[in-house]
Amino acid sequence: MSDLYEKISDLAKRRGFFWPSYEIYGGVSGFYDLGPYGVLLKQRIIEKWRELFVRNHQEYVVELESPLIAPSVVFEASGHVEHFTDPIVTCKGTGRRYRADHLIEEALGISAEGMSTEEMSKLLRERGVKCPDGGEPGEVTTFNLLFKTQIGPYEGDVGYLRPELAQGMFVAFKRVLEAMRNKLPLGIAQIGRVGRNEISPRQAMIRLREFTIMEMEYFVDPEDRDGSCPFFEERAGTRLRILSYDAKAKGGEPQSFTVEEAVMEKVIVDKCLAYWMAVGQEFVEALGVPRHEILFVEKGPGERAHYSSQTFDQVVRTSRWGWVEVAGHSYRGDYDLSRHMSYSKADLTVFKQYREPLNVRVKKVMVDKGALGRLFREKTMEVFSRLQSLPAEVVEEQLAKEGKVTVDGYQVPKEAVRIEEVEEKVTGKKVVPHVVEPSFGGDRALYVAFEYAYREKEGRVILAFPRDLAPVQAAVLPLLENDEELIRTAREIYKALVREGFYVIYDDNGSIGRRYARTDELGVPAAITVDYKTLEDRTVTIRDRDSWNQVRVRAEDLPSALKKFLRGAPLESLP
Amino acid sequence: MSDLYEKISDLAKRRGFFWPSYEIYGGVSGFYDLGPYGVLLKQRIIEKWRELFVRNHQEYVVELESPLIAPSVVFEASGHVEHFTDPIVTCKGTGRRYRADHLIEEALGISAEGMSTEEMSKLLRERGVKCPDGGEPGEVTTFNLLFKTQIGPYEGDVGYLRPELAQGMFVAFKRVLEAMRNKLPLGIAQIGRVGRNEISPRQAMIRLREFTIMEMEYFVDPEDRDGSCPFFEERAGTRLRILSYDAKAKGGEPQSFTVEEAVMEKVIVDKCLAYWMAVGQEFVEALGVPRHEILFVEKGPGERAHYSSQTFDQVVRTSRWGWVEVAGHSYRGDYDLSRHMSYSKADLTVFKQYREPLNVRVKKVMVDKGALGRLFREKTMEVFSRLQSLPAEVVEEQLAKEGKVTVDGYQVPKEAVRIEEVEEKVTGKKVVPHVVEPSFGGDRALYVAFEYAYREKEGRVILAFPRDLAPVQAAVLPLLENDEELIRTAREIYKALVREGFYVIYDDNGSIGRRYARTDELGVPAAITVDYKTLEDRTVTIRDRDSWNQVRVRAEDLPSALKKFLRGAPLESLP
Repeated sequence: MSDLYEKISDLAKRRGFFWPSYEIYGGVSGFYDLGPYGVLLKQRIIEKWRELFVRNHQEYVVELESPLIAPSVVFEASGHVEHFTDPIVTCKGTGRRYRADHLIEEALGISAEGMSTEEMSKLLRERGVKCPDGGEPGEVTTFNLLFKTQIGPYEGDVGYLRPELAQGMFVAFKRVLEAMRNKLPLGIAQIGRVGRNEISPRQAMIRLREFTIMEMEYFVDPEDRDGSCPFFEERAGTRLRILSYDAKAKGGEPQSFTVEEAVMEKVIVDKCLAYWMAVGQEFVEALGVPRHEILFVEKGPGERAHYSSQTFDQVVRTSRWGWVEVAGHSYRGDYDLSRHMSYSKADLTVFKQYREPLNVRVKKVMVDKGALGRLFREKTMEVFSRLQSLPAEVVEEQLAKEGKVTVDGYQVPKEAVRIEEVEEKVTGKKVVPHVVEPSFGGDRALYVAFEYAYREKEGRVILAFPRDLAPVQAAVLPLLENDEELIRTAREIYKALVREGFYVIYDDNGSIGRRYARTDELGVPAAITVDYKTLEDRTVTIRDRDSWNQVRVRAEDLPSALKKFLRGAPLESLP
Repeated sequence: MSDLYEKISDLAKRRGFFWPSYEIYGGVSGFYDLGPYGVLLKQRIIEKWRELFVRNHQEYVVELESPLIAPSVVFEASGHVEHFTDPIVTCKGTGRRYRADHLIEEALGISAEGMSTEEMSKLLRERGVKCPDGGEPGEVTTFNLLFKTQIGPYEGDVGYLRPELAQGMFVAFKRVLEAMRNKLPLGIAQIGRVGRNEISPRQAMIRLREFTIMEMEYFVDPEDRDGSCPFFEERAGTRLRILSYDAKAKGGEPQSFTVEEAVMEKVIVDKCLAYWMAVGQEFVEALGVPRHEILFVEKGPGERAHYSSQTFDQVVRTSRWGWVEVAGHSYRGDYDLSRHMSYSKADLTVFKQYREPLNVRVKKVMVDKGALGRLFREKTMEVFSRLQSLPAEVVEEQLAKEGKVTVDGYQVPKEAVRIEEVEEKVTGKKVVPHVVEPSFGGDRALYVAFEYAYREKEGRVILAFPRDLAPVQAAVLPLLENDEELIRTAREIYKALVREGFYVIYDDNGSIGRRYARTDELGVPAAITVDYKTLEDRTVTIRDRDSWNQVRVRAEDLPSALKKFLRGAPLESLP
C-alpha cells in the first residue's frame, strides 16, 4: 500500500470516485464506473474544458452532438476500417491473444512502433520470445479496434461504435457551417463517449475500452491559415515545453518556447495548432497539474495517425504510468473532408467570397448540342451533363492526346466538344478547409486531476483539488453531534446552501476532528462549522481544507462568501 | 409546409438545432445530430433535470456514470436477452422486414399489444394482410433490440450496448451504497446514451436507435416504503392528471388527483413513485409544456415491462405524433437486484440496523465436526462450509423428510447435523431494497420543448423557450450596420457578456428589424441594442423576445439585469 497508485485506487473506490465496472461479475477489463464524486468531478472538468475551448471562443466555436453508432461507410471513408488496428499474436497451445508490440517491448526492451507485422513476426521468431503464458507466439496479424455491430434487422448492415468524435463533425460539417452562416474559421467541438476494442487493456483509467473525449475540429481557410486565428495575440507569449521530433531523435531535451517563437521557428507548423496547444496547457493546469509536469511531444512520421501531418502528444507525468498522453494536437489538413467528399459525392467545400469580384480568364467546356444529339440521340442529355461535370483541364488534355473525350464509357469526338477561354466575373472560390484538432481524454483528465490532488499531511489524506473543481463544495458541521439546537441551525444553513445550488454535505456523526478529516479526504474546500457562537450571533466558521485556517462570517453572507472562496479568493478576504 | 411538424423540422435544420445524421451518406433512420443550438438547449434541459431530481435532493440522490457496453451476463440477468424483443415479419419475395404489430395496427386498426407471435401470424394470415411492398408476410418471429458486439479479441465474448441505464445502477449498487454510508433511501441517477436497434424507426426525434436517457433508480427499504420519501410533504398537494388502467379499460377519462389523494386511493401504489411523478411533472412544465398537456397513463398488466409491478407513462401531446411518452415511472420492486444476486452470487442486500438490538430465538445449523470428519475426511471443511451456507429452514425440512441433508452432492446423515434454537442478540437484518424508477427520454424532452416553444406572430416565427432554457441568452446589436463607433461599443458589450459566462450572439448584418427577427427565430430572450444614446450615456435597450417591449438599462448593470431577466423577472423590473 505504499505505492501512490495503490493508495489512489483504494481511496477512489472507498470514497465513491471511480472503480472497475462489473465487479460483481468478476470485472471486464477496460471499463470503469464513475461514482457520485467522480461524476461531479468530471462535470466540473467538462465545464472547464467547455469554458476554455467553446464558451470563451463562442463567436467561432460551437458544439455538436452526433451518434456513437455510425454506418460502416463513415469509417471506411475515414480510413479506420483499414488502419485502426493493433498487431496481435495468438499463442500456440493456450490460444491466448496478446498485443505483439507489447510482447516485443516487454520481452526485448525494443520499441515496436512503426514495425510491420512481418518484421514483428520475424523478431519474435528469431529472438525466441515466449508468450507470458509460456506458449510460442504464432504469426503477427492485425486486429481492428472498432466495436462492430449491426444496424437494423438486416445482416450485412454493419455499424461501428465511433473510436473518436471527429467523423461526426466532418459528416455534419456542411449543416453546422450553414447554421453558422457559412463562415470560416469554424470550430466544431464535441464531448462524448467513444469505444476502442483494446486487445488486453491493463492500465485501469489510463487505457479504457470506452471513455469520454473532449475534442474540437477547427476548420480553417487553407489559403489564409494565419488569419484563421484571430485571437492568436491573447496567447502569443504563453510558454510551452516542447520535445520536437528532431530533438527527440537526437536524444535532446524538451525546450521552452513562447507560442509565437514556436510558430516563427516552425517547431509548430501552424498558428492555430499552436494557439490551441496553449489553451490545452491552460486546461491541464486548471486541473491542478503544475506547468513543469506538462510536456508536448511531437510524433514522428511513422508514429502519427494516418491523417495527420503534424501531431503533438500533450503528456503529463504520473506516478505509476510515467508520462501519460492526456491530449493529442493534430494538423489533419483536408484529409477527412476530402475522403468524405470522395466517398459520399457530397460537396463539402466552403465558398470563399472575394471582397470584390475578380475578372479572370477561365477555360470552359463548350459542347455542340446539335452534334451531340446526332451522335447520342436519347442519351444526349446524359452525355451532356457528364461532359459538363468534367474539369476543363481534363477535357483539354484528352482532346489534345486522343482527339476525343471519353466519359463514363461514352466517346465524344472533337466535333462535338471544344475548350474555350472566356472572361468571367468570379465572386469567390471553393476551398476544402483544413483542420486543426485538439482532442482530450476526459477520463485521463479526471485521473490526473485526482492524482495531483492527492496529498498527505500529518498522517491524513487531503484531496487538494483546485477549489472550482471540487466535487462537493462545502460541508456543514454542527460542532457537537448531539446538541439539538446546533443540529437544527446547521440543517437550516445546509438547506439554504442547497437552495443556492451548491453541492454540500451535512455531517453530524462523530467528533468534529474526524468529520474534518472525512471532508478533507473528499476534497471539500470549505468546512462550515456551526457552534455556540452561531446560536448567539448567527456567525459560522469557514475552515480552509488546505491551510486548516478558519474565519468567521455571518450565516447570511455564506453563499456569496462561498462563491468568492471557490473562485480562489483567500480565506482572509471573506466575506 | 402548413403542417406544424414540417415547419419545426425545417426550422430545426436551418437554424442548427437538429437534423437526421449521416445525411451526406443518404441517412440512416433512427439517428439524429444535435447542432450548435440543439446542444445548448439539451445542456440546459439536462441541468434542469439534474437540479430537480439530483441537486435539490442531494442528501439522498447521487449520480453514477457507467459504461454503455456491458458483458452479456448483465443483460441475461436483467432479462433483456430474453424479453427485449419486437415481433418481426419477413415478406416473401422482397425479403423486406417489418414490425408485425405495426403491420397489424396499420392494416387492421387493431392494437397488437400483448399478442403472442402465433396470434399475430394467425391474424395476418386469416385477414390476408399484405406487406407495404405488396408481398405476403411470413411467420411472425421476434427480433432482439439489443445492439450486439464483441468485447476484446475472442469471438464468443459477447457484449451489448445498454438499452437503458438502470442495469449500471444495479450492478454498481453496492459500491455506491458504501460510498453513501450504507443508508437507505438512496437514489442513483444517471444521464447517458443508450442504444435500441429498432426494426424500422420512422418517427424522427421521437423514435431513435440511439438517444439520451435521464433516469434514477430510487432504492427504498421494502419494510418502510412510506418512510422512504422524507420529502413527500413538499409535493403532497401537487395535482396530477392520471388515466388509470381501470378507467382506461372502462373507456373513462383522466382524473385529477393530488399526490396525496392518489396514494390514499391507491391509484398510485407507492408514495415514492407518486412523489417522483410530481417532480417529473414539474420538469416537463419547466420545458414549457402547460400542465393540461401532460398526462400520466397507467399501463396494464400485459403492457408493462417484465420487471414492473406498476408503470405510468408520462405523456405529452404533440402536433404530429399525438400523445408521446416522455417518461416512464415504474415500481420495479426487487426484481433487478434479486436477479443480479442470483446471476452474480454477490450479496446486494442492505444491512438494516435496528435502533436497539433485539433478542430473538433463531434456528441454527449445528454440525458435529467430529462426525463430519470421520465421514468426509479431507473434504470435511468443504462440506462444513456448504452446510453452513444453507438456510436453517432448508436443513430442518430435509432432516424431517429424509433424515439427511444433501448439499452439492454430499449426503450428510442426521448424526452429523442438527437444528438448534438459540437466543441471539440481533442488531439488524438484511433486506433487498425495492426500486422506484423515473426515466426520461432526453431527446424527446428536447423535441417537446422545441415544439411548445414554436409560435407565429405577425407572420414571423418565435421560439419562445422558457428564458432559462434558451440556448443563446442574449444578442448584442449595434443599431446601424455601418457606424464604426456603434460597432466598437457593441463589440465591447458583447465581449463583457461573454466574459461573464453568457452565450451571446453579436450581429451587425442587415436592418435592425431583420436582426430582431433572426434572434426571435433562434429563441434569444433578450436583444440588446446599442444606439446613439449609448454613446452619450452608456445605456442600452433590452428588448423582450416575447412582448417586443424594451427598457433601457446602464451597460454596466447589464450582466446582473440579464441574470434576473433569465430567471424570470419582468422586463419592467430591470435592472
